[in-house]
Amino acid sequence: MRIGILTGGGDCPGLNAVIRGIVRSSGEGYEIYGVLNGWKGMLSKDVMKLDNEDVEGIHILGGTILGTARVNPFKREEDRMLLEKNFKELGFDALIAIGGDDTLSVAAKLSSLGYPVVGVPKTIDNDVSNTDYTFGFHTAVNVGADAIDRLHSTAKSHQRVMIVELMGREAGWITIEAGLAAGAHLILIPEFPMTINEIVTYVNRRMKKNRYMIIAVAEGFKPTELEEVVADKSTIDAFGHIRLGGVAHYLAEIIEQKTGYETRSVVLGHLLRGGTPTAFDRILGTRYGVEAMNLVKKRDFGRMVALKGNEIISIPLEYGVATKKLVPFEYYKLAQIFFD
Amino acid sequence: MRIGILTGGGDCPGLNAVIRGIVRSSGEGYEIYGVLNGWKGMLSKDVMKLDNEDVEGIHILGGTILGTARVNPFKREEDRMLLEKNFKELGFDALIAIGGDDTLSVAAKLSSLGYPVVGVPKTIDNDVSNTDYTFGFHTAVNVGADAIDRLHSTAKSHQRVMIVELMGREAGWITIEAGLAAGAHLILIPEFPMTINEIVTYVNRRMKKNRYMIIAVAEGFKPTELEEVVADKSTIDAFGHIRLGGVAHYLAEIIEQKTGYETRSVVLGHLLRGGTPTAFDRILGTRYGVEAMNLVKKRDFGRMVALKGNEIISIPLEYGVATKKLVPFEYYKLAQIFFD
Amino acid sequence: MRIGILTGGGDCPGLNAVIRGIVRSSGEGYEIYGVLNGWKGMLSKDVMKLDNEDVEGIHILGGTILGTARVNPFKREEDRMLLEKNFKELGFDALIAIGGDDTLSVAAKLSSLGYPVVGVPKTIDNDVSNTDYTFGFHTAVNVGADAIDRLHSTAKSHQRVMIVELMGREAGWITIEAGLAAGAHLILIPEFPMTINEIVTYVNRRMKKNRYMIIAVAEGFKPTELEEVVADKSTIDAFGHIRLGGVAHYLAEIIEQKTGYETRSVVLGHLLRGGTPTAFDRILGTRYGVEAMNLVKKRDFGRMVALKGNEIISIPLEYGVATKKLVPFEYYKLAQIFFD
Amino acid sequence: MRIGILTGGGDCPGLNAVIRGIVRSSGEGYEIYGVLNGWKGMLSKDVMKLDNEDVEGIHILGGTILGTARVNPFKREEDRMLLEKNFKELGFDALIAIGGDDTLSVAAKLSSLGYPVVGVPKTIDNDVSNTDYTFGFHTAVNVGADAIDRLHSTAKSHQRVMIVELMGREAGWITIEAGLAAGAHLILIPEFPMTINEIVTYVNRRMKKNRYMIIAVAEGFKPTELEEVVADKSTIDAFGHIRLGGVAHYLAEIIEQKTGYETRSVVLGHLLRGGTPTAFDRILGTRYGVEAMNLVKKRDFGRMVALKGNEIISIPLEYGVATKKLVPFEYYKLAQIFFD
Repeated sequence: MRIGILTGGGDCPGLNAVIRGIVRSSGEGYEIYGVLNGWKGMLSKDVMKLDNEDVEGIHILGGTILGTARVNPFKREEDRMLLEKNFKELGFDALIAIGGDDTLSVAAKLSSLGYPVVGVPKTIDNDVSNTDYTFGFHTAVNVGADAIDRLHSTAKSHQRVMIVELMGREAGWITIEAGLAAGAHLILIPEFPMTINEIVTYVNRRMKKNRYMIIAVAEGFKPTELEEVVADKSTIDAFGHIRLGGVAHYLAEIIEQKTGYETRSVVLGHLLRGGTPTAFDRILGTRYGVEAMNLVKKRDFGRMVALKGNEIISIPLEYGVATKKLVPFEYYKLAQIFFD
Repeated sequence: MRIGILTGGGDCPGLNAVIRGIVRSSGEGYEIYGVLNGWKGMLSKDVMKLDNEDVEGIHILGGTILGTARVNPFKREEDRMLLEKNFKELGFDALIAIGGDDTLSVAAKLSSLGYPVVGVPKTIDNDVSNTDYTFGFHTAVNVGADAIDRLHSTAKSHQRVMIVELMGREAGWITIEAGLAAGAHLILIPEFPMTINEIVTYVNRRMKKNRYMIIAVAEGFKPTELEEVVADKSTIDAFGHIRLGGVAHYLAEIIEQKTGYETRSVVLGHLLRGGTPTAFDRILGTRYGVEAMNLVKKRDFGRMVALKGNEIISIPLEYGVATKKLVPFEYYKLAQIFFD
Repeated sequence: MRIGILTGGGDCPGLNAVIRGIVRSSGEGYEIYGVLNGWKGMLSKDVMKLDNEDVEGIHILGGTILGTARVNPFKREEDRMLLEKNFKELGFDALIAIGGDDTLSVAAKLSSLGYPVVGVPKTIDNDVSNTDYTFGFHTAVNVGADAIDRLHSTAKSHQRVMIVELMGREAGWITIEAGLAAGAHLILIPEFPMTINEIVTYVNRRMKKNRYMIIAVAEGFKPTELEEVVADKSTIDAFGHIRLGGVAHYLAEIIEQKTGYETRSVVLGHLLRGGTPTAFDRILGTRYGVEAMNLVKKRDFGRMVALKGNEIISIPLEYGVATKKLVPFEYYKLAQIFFD
Repeated sequence: MRIGILTGGGDCPGLNAVIRGIVRSSGEGYEIYGVLNGWKGMLSKDVMKLDNEDVEGIHILGGTILGTARVNPFKREEDRMLLEKNFKELGFDALIAIGGDDTLSVAAKLSSLGYPVVGVPKTIDNDVSNTDYTFGFHTAVNVGADAIDRLHSTAKSHQRVMIVELMGREAGWITIEAGLAAGAHLILIPEFPMTINEIVTYVNRRMKKNRYMIIAVAEGFKPTELEEVVADKSTIDAFGHIRLGGVAHYLAEIIEQKTGYETRSVVLGHLLRGGTPTAFDRILGTRYGVEAMNLVKKRDFGRMVALKGNEIISIPLEYGVATKKLVPFEYYKLAQIFFD
């Protein structure tokens, strides 16, 4: 049997562990082909055979050895037809698609057209419904917490407000967990807007008492009164967000201006995505890969793997892409205990 | 209300996050007292008041600011009486005990005598039943995996067999997870004995093909035929285990002798316990602490906190200490895929 | 004897090791007083006594326990007079000033007025003349190299150009060393300007061949033709530099526009300053502190400590602040070997 | 021109940076051949051509891609003849030998027989004369200091004496630097023996005052009265040292017995050798490699590269292997300031 694998969307620590898990657990009678650069490789038929030697040691590497791209073959009819044609010509008996919303929604459509597809959820933001955690998330949180740890000493020595921007357009998971872990004194996430005045009140209270402050903010956070205070509309992008790297810089300026305390900003950006996965993410990726191969062997198609407690389970492909898992109020309340 | 906290048994990264979580979430009307050195401090009435300032920043430190000891006041009747007397004299309206089997069994007994006690499970070995993970475990696995990562390059350059011993007397969790994460080529844990001959077969197969090999072994692993091959009984301790640091050295000697391949051993020991907790463990400790305080506030005594999926729940104190959670065969089978 | 210590200017990993080194080596007959927030504390007479207990374990912490500020008491005559008055009133028999250009030039002036002063050079940029290395520099290079390591996998997976901005307004030491260590494919530093066209040529050559590229750029780097290409003068600050976080963003935009390759930027900024010093920096700080105290004991004032090879020596205070140590052409040529 | 490279003796972080430095700086007209497994590969003519692609990214990997072995072809006359014969048959116009005492003494002998040889010193112990630092040393010190940092929290929580054994048979550099960096309370190295009674005095003094203690000991340290106290001569090896892993265990037992304080030991061993080199070691290795190639290009044979201050220089091959660089009393005195 010929099995294809592809990785789509943004890269994420743990992708290579999934690939290795699939290849190593395939065994006799299965030939694994890596499709290069996500769905793009299905359109150009760029594939490479993957043997045990090819995946030796890759689980400790960030990124994906298969490359990735953000191409959706269902956007244009010709692409969709080409995809179906190539699926057949490549002779794939199954395809394992590893990716986020976009990649998995393509997988779900292919599946509904009768193709034998299995999905592996991938999002560094941890916002996939019906799975406890996605790989890469813990690594991002660790890198973020480690960065915030480092910033404490500088903020303290200089008696500054320090604003750290982390990833998260719609879901604030990375920001709230890194902020909680590293003792940020205020955490701002998209799910729970706050006015500039409220933020300023927190800053004044903390600075008077403790003389330094760390604020963790998700890139997608918008102050409630954004519309009014931001005069220059060019700093707001198509989604109504302040531009990348924008929230932290914007808040730093307005806080310094309104409180008089020296304020600096740091944007972690791509740093959170890269590098060696934590042990947790390597194992989660490995288990996802093994279970995906297992579904293929059982010919249990149209499903994706997921984590429930300590167990790897599988759910229908559509369940994972249905709705985003956002930070619930209960969890935010926990974080609030440490705002001060 | 006066609330006591104590930490007992071996130290574990994340203990200080629990303490901080309790203190920070206590709020108005609650005075928190740290009891020094576990149950020992209850016998000597060594306590210190804990305010928000005392727990500032401690969640990133390993160990426990309260100190710990392995004293069981139910072993001697006088101690038990002294414990009860001091509990009253200290005027505690509740006591939160953070510890493993031993500490929690004392807590359970106190509770059955009618004292208002709440438990927080602590074991670096992750072998507590009815909770998905305990804090400290992920840190230990990360440190272990990082060490094994480092050993790959030396083993490869010298074409050696390298044996790494990790913690785990009865449960092989740390060893199997660190071994899986770091790509060990054979994993030996107490739950699944193996004969020396089987081990030698793995070594010969791998070395012929790949010229170097990493074996992860738990301190409590015993080769099946131990009795016969170990001539010198003094190397076996009271539990029938090879002495600390013993398994790795013993295996290194016998493997080198039987296969002719140069073999070295490394014992990670206390390195796995110490140091800064991972973000995951800081958060888990924090959530446990907050929930323990919550149980106190609700006067829901005789219970311990636990993790189920993403949720912090509580269960009766006895449930946690009832049986050890060992590595199940299903999980070991997953690891076996990567033995080669 | 009463000895004052102060730390001035930007914070730097290793400052606390210097402080501990001074206190621990002072011995009988010496009382050490920490002056808070640099020269500012001399004006407000904010001092705290430092004993062995106060410096226990601080050598592994970033920042400075004494706080820091950028105040120069020689700027205003009243301040200068107040400084001299307070020096006498505090009864200091010697003052150890730990800081960069600015702090040490104040120390040199005080010394020329006859005050017993000793200097310890501090610059994360490593641009002090007459000393091989300053503490904090290795830590910054390590953090920078580690960040670039992480970015390789993302850049590769997405076939991108990734531009990383590191500290260095005038001296490119951090950028060239982190870039060399982490295998950047082009290194841009203030000492060696390059035209946009040259940069674009490097990008095209590398991307055609290897499909991803990492560029390390110092914040103070200016493309040769800056004046012409930058239409909007508001992006250039008083020093003629592109604004903080500006070079990387500016280059990313212009490279993407001129080459068509997807290009992203990351600004490391304050991340490089914070956190636990490397072993090298802890030792260098410690040795500097011990030698500074030694100079005080020998009453060898008007001097600063320095590193020559493996030896700690001392030189006249003016020598250190005379000229900046820039990256020489010889060293840049070495880096060029790896441009590709 | 055909240039051979080989790596001999124990592996060391930074070896791959040297190899990459040589290959990348060779340029037109030079073909580089890697000789596998040290001098052994010269006897078996195991060589592989090395191009730029082969060394891509290897500078961040520990170990050596060429493999290593401890074979000395001057031990047997046949081997020496075979070495000379193969040198000619392989058509090498120069050979770059990267290694310690043993490897470089072979290189020196070959050179004295008229062969065109260049040396690169390699010792994790930093005990090569006439060079300020050797690569790998800083990495080992960092790993060691990081391990000791971790042990502080456990030792403190349990009020224990913790003994950490680090590498160093004759030279105590790694132990003294890691101990200094991580705040060990006593440092024991081969250069400065101490009696058990002196050690016990230090332990009693510290434990009474601070209740926990970290002792860093080099594997080659011998208590002064060793002969008398060690009854069982089988624990002493051919060199008169206590066996590997022996010093720490031995001291732990005797200290616990003589002081009554709970004492534990940890042996870092091979952990110090492995893994990703620090930025410093990657750069030092790179610069050594580039300079070695430079010597080849200038046909300046019979020499080895070395570090003096910030400069890479070259010295006659014999100078490096002449005498071991031991820790001088001056440096030990510095460390003594922090014994307490």
